[in-house]
Amino acid sequence: MKLVLLSGGVDSSTALALAKAIDPDILAITFTYNQQHEQMELLAAQKVSEYYQVRHKIMDLSSIFSDSQSALSLNNDIPIAEGAYGETNELNTEVEFRNGVFLAILASLAKQYRADEIYFGAHQDESGTIYPDCSPEFIQTMNQAIQLGTNNSVSIKAPFMTRLKKDIVATGIELEVPYELTYSCYKGTDPACGVCGTCIDRKKAFEANGLEVA
Amino acid sequence: MKLVLLSGGVDSSTALALAKAIDPDILAITFTYNQQHEQMELLAAQKVSEYYQVRHKIMDLSSIFSDSQSALSLNNDIPIAEGAYGETNELNTEVEFRNGVFLAILASLAKQYRADEIYFGAHQDESGTIYPDCSPEFIQTMNQAIQLGTNNSVSIKAPFMTRLKKDIVATGIELEVPYELTYSCYKGTDPACGVCGTCIDRKKAFEANGLEVA
Repeated sequence: MKLVLLSGGVDSSTALALAKAIDPDILAITFTYNQQHEQMELLAAQKVSEYYQVRHKIMDLSSIFSDSQSALSLNNDIPIAEGAYGETNELNTEVEFRNGVFLAILASLAKQYRADEIYFGAHQDESGTIYPDCSPEFIQTMNQAIQLGTNNSVSIKAPFMTRLKKDIVATGIELEVPYELTYSCYKGTDPACGVCGTCIDRKKAFEANGLEVA
Repeated sequence: MKLVLLSGGVDSSTALALAKAIDPDILAITFTYNQQHEQMELLAAQKVSEYYQVRHKIMDLSSIFSDSQSALSLNNDIPIAEGAYGETNELNTEVEFRNGVFLAILASLAKQYRADEIYFGAHQDESGTIYPDCSPEFIQTMNQAIQLGTNNSVSIKAPFMTRLKKDIVATGIELEVPYELTYSCYKGTDPACGVCGTCIDRKKAFEANGLEVA
């Protein structure tokens, strides 16, 4: 059995497709933390889970992040920065050790449910180098901590850890991932805003594969 | 500012005393997870926090551990094993990656509150070698993951990591820790049961210092 950290975006949906191709026994988990784009993320994660016919668990972590200073959080009224990753000096969408919290909880759930791997769609490009809890060094060290703390019964599988988002989309096209069901925008608007870092990132990754953004 | 993981037992109360001696700005945090001894732990943690006049935050994590197979959890009716650590083959009080979850959440809270260190009272004796998420290797690796994932703004301080419980009590006696306010029993009875692993551990640590158990 595999757990998949599923936000409903391009990266995690492709990670789910990979996991499902290897093991039919999947539990997708979506965390909410009072993020701006919570409703749209949840909707996308549900659609993708239904498409792949996998179990889907939603867990609310808003009490843990209730004093977050991130613009992603609805607990404050900081506006989300616009512009492409790497081209703006302003990054205010980091959520305090978010992926560390997500992965630790997933490790506990994996042990409770007797799953052996956690699929995690983090990748390495402009966003990966900006967020410290997306770096390969962080993921590898967190993986070691999880292996040590679970007597080697659980580990992280991060297939895109050293790859670019355009490579994820290339893999996903081969696997026929239904990207039209996914959602990435940090602002949580419908349709997506098109000007936040993650909207621009998504558009570039599809264009690099000769496609219009899904 | 320092955060202290405070269960209300001997180890974490001594860690709080050490932290308070170094920095007056302390936030003690107690996690509940539907453990057998929740009420008694909470009461002890509140008394110890009041004694040291530090802020105290209680956070409920029962939804994360709702499918725990640990005898410590009230979600199942597995009886807690009796007998000293290291002298019984049965260990059923491990909670799935509990300290990993606790430390990751504390790292996020530290970043949200701008604290730089997390005090963690884990120690190395019979219990430390049995629980994988108490080992020095786990704590050191988790510390590295937290440092990497927070851009080196947060780290774990585990002053007893390689020491024995009797050494913790020796330090605590010097610091005049009010051990009579603390509580350790896994069964959550009042008075403590005296026969579970942690009751025996507590008794031995006081006896090694020439004292009756507090």
